[in-house]
Amino acid sequence: MAVRDVQSGARNEDGIRAVLGILKQAFGDRFQTGQSFREQHAHTTTYLPAQLPDGVVFVETNEDVKSVVRTCAEHRVPVIPFGVGSSLEGQVNAPSGGISVDFSRMNKVLRISPEDLDVTVEPGITREELNRELRDTGLFFPIDPGANATIGGMASTRASGTNAVRYGTMKDNVLALTVVTADGEEIRTARRARKSSAGYDLTRLFVGAEGTLGVITSVTLKLQGIPEKIGGGVCAFPSVEAACNAVIMTIQMGVPVARIELLDDVQIKACNAYSDLSYPEKPTLFLEFHGTEDTVRIQSEQFAEIAAECGGDEFQWTANAEERTKLWNARHNAYWAGRALDPSLNGLSTDVCVPISRLAECVAETQADIQSSGLLAPIVGHAGDGNFHVLVLFYDKDPASVANVEAFTERLSRRALAMDGTCTGEHGIGQGKISYLDEELGGALDVMRSVKKGLDPENIFNPGKIFRMAQA
Amino acid sequence: MAVRDVQSGARNEDGIRAVLGILKQAFGDRFQTGQSFREQHAHTTTYLPAQLPDGVVFVETNEDVKSVVRTCAEHRVPVIPFGVGSSLEGQVNAPSGGISVDFSRMNKVLRISPEDLDVTVEPGITREELNRELRDTGLFFPIDPGANATIGGMASTRASGTNAVRYGTMKDNVLALTVVTADGEEIRTARRARKSSAGYDLTRLFVGAEGTLGVITSVTLKLQGIPEKIGGGVCAFPSVEAACNAVIMTIQMGVPVARIELLDDVQIKACNAYSDLSYPEKPTLFLEFHGTEDTVRIQSEQFAEIAAECGGDEFQWTANAEERTKLWNARHNAYWAGRALDPSLNGLSTDVCVPISRLAECVAETQADIQSSGLLAPIVGHAGDGNFHVLVLFYDKDPASVANVEAFTERLSRRALAMDGTCTGEHGIGQGKISYLDEELGGALDVMRSVKKGLDPENIFNPGKIFRMAQA
Repeated sequence: MAVRDVQSGARNEDGIRAVLGILKQAFGDRFQTGQSFREQHAHTTTYLPAQLPDGVVFVETNEDVKSVVRTCAEHRVPVIPFGVGSSLEGQVNAPSGGISVDFSRMNKVLRISPEDLDVTVEPGITREELNRELRDTGLFFPIDPGANATIGGMASTRASGTNAVRYGTMKDNVLALTVVTADGEEIRTARRARKSSAGYDLTRLFVGAEGTLGVITSVTLKLQGIPEKIGGGVCAFPSVEAACNAVIMTIQMGVPVARIELLDDVQIKACNAYSDLSYPEKPTLFLEFHGTEDTVRIQSEQFAEIAAECGGDEFQWTANAEERTKLWNARHNAYWAGRALDPSLNGLSTDVCVPISRLAECVAETQADIQSSGLLAPIVGHAGDGNFHVLVLFYDKDPASVANVEAFTERLSRRALAMDGTCTGEHGIGQGKISYLDEELGGALDVMRSVKKGLDPENIFNPGKIFRMAQA
Repeated sequence: MAVRDVQSGARNEDGIRAVLGILKQAFGDRFQTGQSFREQHAHTTTYLPAQLPDGVVFVETNEDVKSVVRTCAEHRVPVIPFGVGSSLEGQVNAPSGGISVDFSRMNKVLRISPEDLDVTVEPGITREELNRELRDTGLFFPIDPGANATIGGMASTRASGTNAVRYGTMKDNVLALTVVTADGEEIRTARRARKSSAGYDLTRLFVGAEGTLGVITSVTLKLQGIPEKIGGGVCAFPSVEAACNAVIMTIQMGVPVARIELLDDVQIKACNAYSDLSYPEKPTLFLEFHGTEDTVRIQSEQFAEIAAECGGDEFQWTANAEERTKLWNARHNAYWAGRALDPSLNGLSTDVCVPISRLAECVAETQADIQSSGLLAPIVGHAGDGNFHVLVLFYDKDPASVANVEAFTERLSRRALAMDGTCTGEHGIGQGKISYLDEELGGALDVMRSVKKGLDPENIFNPGKIFRMAQA
C-alpha cells in the first residue's frame, strides 16, 4: 500500500510499440527495456508508487536527445528525463508509460570561465562531481539540496537547500539553458551575459518546469568564489518561536548568513543518537558564515548578540574546519538520523514554505499536529527562507498508518497555504502535490496550461506532472 | 527625421471606434482622447518616433483594468500599459493604435510586512514614492534604474541599474504579481513565500514581458534593510582595461560592492563640466559599499588593494554622507551631463551587456568605433554586471547624422552578441531592438511566440513589441 494513489494516464500502445522498435534499432545496447532497468528508473526516493517507463535510453549527445524526442513526438509517446532519481514527488514516474531518458552519460563540464564566474555543463553531472571539477579554479557551485542530484534535475525542480538564504535557488543561479523542444529542435534560452532584458525569460520558464516543457541538454550556471574563511556554529533555544525570532532578526539586519538551519527537538534527539553527539534536546539553529577572517568573525558576533537577545543559549561557533565539518555532518545526516528513529518504518519527506514571519507559528502548529496525530516526525528547516521539511515515519503495510500520514500532509500543505505560503518550497509538485497547486494558484493554472499547450501540444513531455491537462 | 523607422501595424478601425464609445461611457472624464493626452502617452524619452494611442484611460482599481481589458479584448483593440513613459525603446508606442492604460492613479502601497521584508504595491507607484513610503520602516527598495520609473514599468522591462551587482534586477526582486490576462480575469502568479517550486515560474514570465502577455495590477517586492553604514569612493585608472580588471577582481573575490560604475574619459569630462567637478579625465570607477562600520571599511580596503594592483590612482573613499551624495549626484546626472556636451543635439541612449571578461574589450572597441565614426558619445557602465550604456549625440534633422548613429548602434549590438552578450541588459527590446533579438536568440523566439499565442491569442497586449507575430 502506498501513500496517495497516483493516476495512471492512457497508454498509447501502438505508439509505444513503434518507438521501442525504432529506439532499439537506433541505440542498440544504449536502449534497455529489461525489468530491472525500468524499475531502477521509476523506483526513486519518492514515497509514491513506482510507474515504470517502457524503456530507458542512455543518451550521450544533444543529437541523441533530439533523435529520441523526434521519435517520441512522431508517435506521441511520453519522454521522461532522468537524472539520479532523487526527486521526491514522483517526478520520474511514467503514468502513461513512455521512454526514460537517462542523462548519466551526459555529465561533462563543457566550458568554465573563471573570470566570468560561470560554467556550462551537461545536465547529467551531479553537484558533487561539478564541485570536484571546479576544485582547482577557486570557485564552487553553492546550491546544495542535500542529495547528490544532477544539475539538470536540480534545474527542473527549481531546487535549493541549506544555503539558498545566501546564494538563492536554481532560479537565481542558472544563466542559460539549451533545451530540445517538442519539434525536436534545440533552442538556447539566453546568452552568457549576467543580466538581460531581451524578451521573455525562457530560462526561468524551463527552470522548475519538471521536464514538462522540453528536455534540457545543457545548463550554464553562475559560480561563486570559495570563501576565504568559513565559520560555523550552533545555538539552542528554549522554543521554536525564540529560534525563529533570532532568524528573523538576523535576516532583517542583513547579516549575510550562508546557512541558518532549524532543527526541532525531535530532530536533535535523532541526530544525537545517529551521530553520537550530545546537543541539548531543544530547538537548535545551525549556522554557517562565509567571508574573510574579519567578516566571518563580525557576522558571528552579530548573530551571538541576536541569539542572546532572543533567549538562546550561548552561541558556540568555530572557524575550525574539522569541528565545522562534524557539525554540518550532523545536519546533513538529518534525514538518515530521522529514519533511524525507527528503522522498521517508511519515511515520507515533505516540504512547505511560508513568509518568515509565520514560520514559528507554522512549525509550532505542525509540531502540535504531529503530537496529536501520534506521529513520529522530525522537522528540519531552511529557516532563513521560511522553508521546512517534515520527515513523517509511517508503516506502509498498515492502511491506518497510511491514512494518518496522508491526512497529516494534507493539513500541512493547507496550513502553509493559509499563511500565504506555498505547498512546496523546493521539492516541486510532481504527482504528489497536484491537488494543492490548484488551491495555491487557482486561475494561474490555466495560464500554465496555456503555456504547456503552446510548447507541447501533444503532451509528450513528462505528462501527469504539475497539473492534469484534462482539466483545461 | 527619426532614428530607425518603426513599423505601423494594421488598425482595427471598427473595433477602435466601438471601444472609444464604450470607454467614454464607462469612464467619463477618466477617459481622454484629446491630442495632448495622446501625445503625452507616446512622447517619451525614447528616440523612436511617437505612435499615438487612440485614447487614454486613467484606471483606479483592478476592476477598472479588468473592464478595459474585457472591452478591448472583445473588440480586438490593443491595450498598452503606461507608467511614466521613461522606457527607452518605444515600449509605450501604439503602432496599431489602441488604448493607453495610465496607472498614475494606481500608486498605493497595499501592504507592508517589515518582518518579511516585503511590500505589495499598485503598479503606478514610482520607486522614489515607494522609498518615501518605506522611510519609517528601516527598509528600502534597492533597484535604481536612474529614472524615477514606476514599479510596474520596471517589472515589465526587467529593469535594474546601478546596484544590481549587489541586489539583482527586477527578476530577482519581484516575489509575486497579480495580472489581468486576455480573458479579463485576474491571476496571482505566486504566494508570498520567499521561494517556491510550485509549478511554472509565471512571475518571471510576466517580468520583462513588456506588457505583451497581460496587464500587471499589483507587484509584491522584496525589500532590504537600510544599511547601517554606506561608504563610497572614486578611483581613476590609466585605461578602461585596467578599470575593468579591477572590477573583475572585485567580483571574483566576492567583495559585496553595492555599486561599481565605470565612467569613461568622455563621460568624466562631461560630468566635470556639468557638475563643476575636477576629476582626472580618465576612465574612473565610482563605488559604493553597504554594511556596518566595520564591513564597509574592510570592503573599501579590499578594493583599494585591488585598485592599486591594477594600476589605479589612489582610491578616494568616504563614509561621509554629504560627500557621498555629491559623488553619486555626479554619476546620477551622467545622462544630462552627456546631453549638455552639445545641447543642440539629440541623444540616443542604448545599452548592451556582455560577460564581464569581455567588458574591457567591448568598451574599448566601442570607443574606437565612436572615434572613427566621428561621434560624440560618453559611456557609463554598470561594470559589475558587464552592462554599459552609450549616449550617442546626433542631429535628428540631418539624414547623414541619423544614418551614422543607426549604423553605430547596429555595430554595437552585433559586437555584444559576438561576445556572447545581449543586445540589451536593462532597457528591453520594445520596438527599437526587434531585429537584434532574432540574432540573439534565434529559434527561442518561436518558443516566445508560442507563449504569446497561448496567453494572448488575439495579440491585444502591446502589439508590435519584442517580436513581430507575423513572422511566426
